Amino acid sequence: MSAREYDRCTRFVDAGRLPTDSPARHSFAGRIGRGAKPPPQFGHTLASIRSTQSAQNVHSKVQIRASGESGGRSRSQASQLGLSSRAMVTRLTIAPPQGLPKNPRIRPFGYTMPSLIWSLAMTPTITAFEKSPDRGRGLARDTRVRWALEEVGQPYKVRLLSFPAMKEPAHLALNPFGQIPTYEEGDLALFESGGIVLHIAEHHAGLLPADVNARARAITWMFAALSSVEPPILDFSFAKILEGDKPWARDRQPLVEERVRNRLQPLSNRLGDAEWLDGAFSAGDLMMVSVLLRLKPSGFLEGFPRLSAYVARGEARPAYQRAFAAQLAVFNAQAAG
Amino acid sequence: MSAREYDRCTRFVDAGRLPTDSPARHSFAGRIGRGAKPPPQFGHTLASIRSTQSAQNVHSKVQIRASGESGGRSRSQASQLGLSSRAMVTRLTIAPPQGLPKNPRIRPFGYTMPSLIWSLAMTPTITAFEKSPDRGRGLARDTRVRWALEEVGQPYKVRLLSFPAMKEPAHLALNPFGQIPTYEEGDLALFESGGIVLHIAEHHAGLLPADVNARARAITWMFAALSSVEPPILDFSFAKILEGDKPWARDRQPLVEERVRNRLQPLSNRLGDAEWLDGAFSAGDLMMVSVLLRLKPSGFLEGFPRLSAYVARGEARPAYQRAFAAQLAVFNAQAAG
Repeated sequence: MSAREYDRCTRFVDAGRLPTDSPARHSFAGRIGRGAKPPPQFGHTLASIRSTQSAQNVHSKVQIRASGESGGRSRSQASQLGLSSRAMVTRLTIAPPQGLPKNPRIRPFGYTMPSLIWSLAMTPTITAFEKSPDRGRGLARDTRVRWALEEVGQPYKVRLLSFPAMKEPAHLALNPFGQIPTYEEGDLALFESGGIVLHIAEHHAGLLPADVNARARAITWMFAALSSVEPPILDFSFAKILEGDKPWARDRQPLVEERVRNRLQPLSNRLGDAEWLDGAFSAGDLMMVSVLLRLKPSGFLEGFPRLSAYVARGEARPAYQRAFAAQLAVFNAQAAG
Repeated sequence: MSAREYDRCTRFVDAGRLPTDSPARHSFAGRIGRGAKPPPQFGHTLASIRSTQSAQNVHSKVQIRASGESGGRSRSQASQLGLSSRAMVTRLTIAPPQGLPKNPRIRPFGYTMPSLIWSLAMTPTITAFEKSPDRGRGLARDTRVRWALEEVGQPYKVRLLSFPAMKEPAHLALNPFGQIPTYEEGDLALFESGGIVLHIAEHHAGLLPADVNARARAITWMFAALSSVEPPILDFSFAKILEGDKPWARDRQPLVEERVRNRLQPLSNRLGDAEWLDGAFSAGDLMMVSVLLRLKPSGFLEGFPRLSAYVARGEARPAYQRAFAAQLAVFNAQAAG
């Protein structure tokens, strides 16, 4: 267990409670970061789950589906304890016996970690356009969220929405602006692709660096993408889509393009010949590539070869490919059916 | 020490290192959240600091200025250990003896917390306009950062920049887009008001709720402010400031206003009669109020009485008042001098 994973796990101290009143039943998967092994005292751990549950007066049944090689063992332990594959819980906190585990990697500063906190998250549900206005080109904001989920290996469900459904009270309760995507995970509901991607990045390994300063910089790049780079790019699109037939469209175009250029040139300068914006690929790159992709159909990006190559590197990632294919499959199915 | 503070402190596990090569000397203050008391074994803790330092081969002198009533004691302990008021360290991790402290509040799940991790952060430095184009009305983005720092009680320094200086390599290294504010804290440098405010909120108590779901929602509101609400408001300003003399200005104005209204109406609906967007005041409200304040000079906000009242509540906060006064003092001093 790395310091990063330890950090992530301890965050769930705050969650410290099991929902006791949710009528829904969901399947879920437990994990402690990528490639983490369950502690050797796994039977004990499962027993602790059960006792935590009764302490919280939650009478649900739990399946532990740990990742990787632990899968088989955890399932058999689950069965041994009489737990089933459906559960009402979103997160559990599990305390193994004092002094465990012995792995020195979890004692980064020479102390023994006393408790292992295990986050068990339900499969999240996101929303997406039933029929995306971009005709499956991956520019709708659900693609970013799909991409983040694919990067961290988190399975997800999708609920498709028509345009009228997006403005109905049920959806406005999730997103006051009546847009997609939204993100539901147990009793948590989020909107805003930035907020969703950051939530995913914070609760899974793979999208934020372990170093606390590098982590803060990666998050700053997320804000830079959404707050400094995307707005002029959206204006560029709006000028065409929403104002293309206006009498001022032609005369105003150079001004709109200049604002985009005023972001792309400094961004290109900063990127230089690096592969990603700050060290390894992060949620900051995921968001910046997503934002720049909006320019691809226009050919505008071709004036910035470093950024074109950067976007191409993002698109080449297997997780992006899966996310793109998933959203395209939705559009194709709707178009066919 | 609350679960939230424990969470915050454990984050510094990741920082896990003392800078060994910084030539600069800085004063700094140590704190564990608001009103936290130092552990009773404070002498031991200070000894640990010293030994941590030698382990890391850092030969600097350290002053611990703990908050509140611990101040005097810590200073005397510091003196007893031969430590002075200047230090090269940015963060320290301190492990008190096993089994301490005894306070049950730090054992949220029935286990004993074995180690107290103490974050010592240098006074951060932000950048601001030498002469703000808004003439001290508090609309420049340093005000948001000042506000966040005031809310959490973190002292800060300000470096003022002329417009030419903002485009020089030294500043472009901090912010590739050549803008203010930036944030420097030890070896960390950030830009983007969103990234900075979130960093402050994550490392101090007071701007994010303790509940992990409420925390994610507060962060989503930060993104909503910057990514969904601010862009049309900025366009509204640009249409006046940058395109006011264009032949299309008058005909295009209703379109620009409609886009702002399309955000304000749903936002007002969601807020309803609540005081803040989601429970207690959070970094999400700080950012949303900051963004809406841009509309104040135009009178546009008056069409949305709930939002006007919401903004007024934000402005009435003592921390906002201090932030506003600080940025106004800069403008007045420059205007006078």
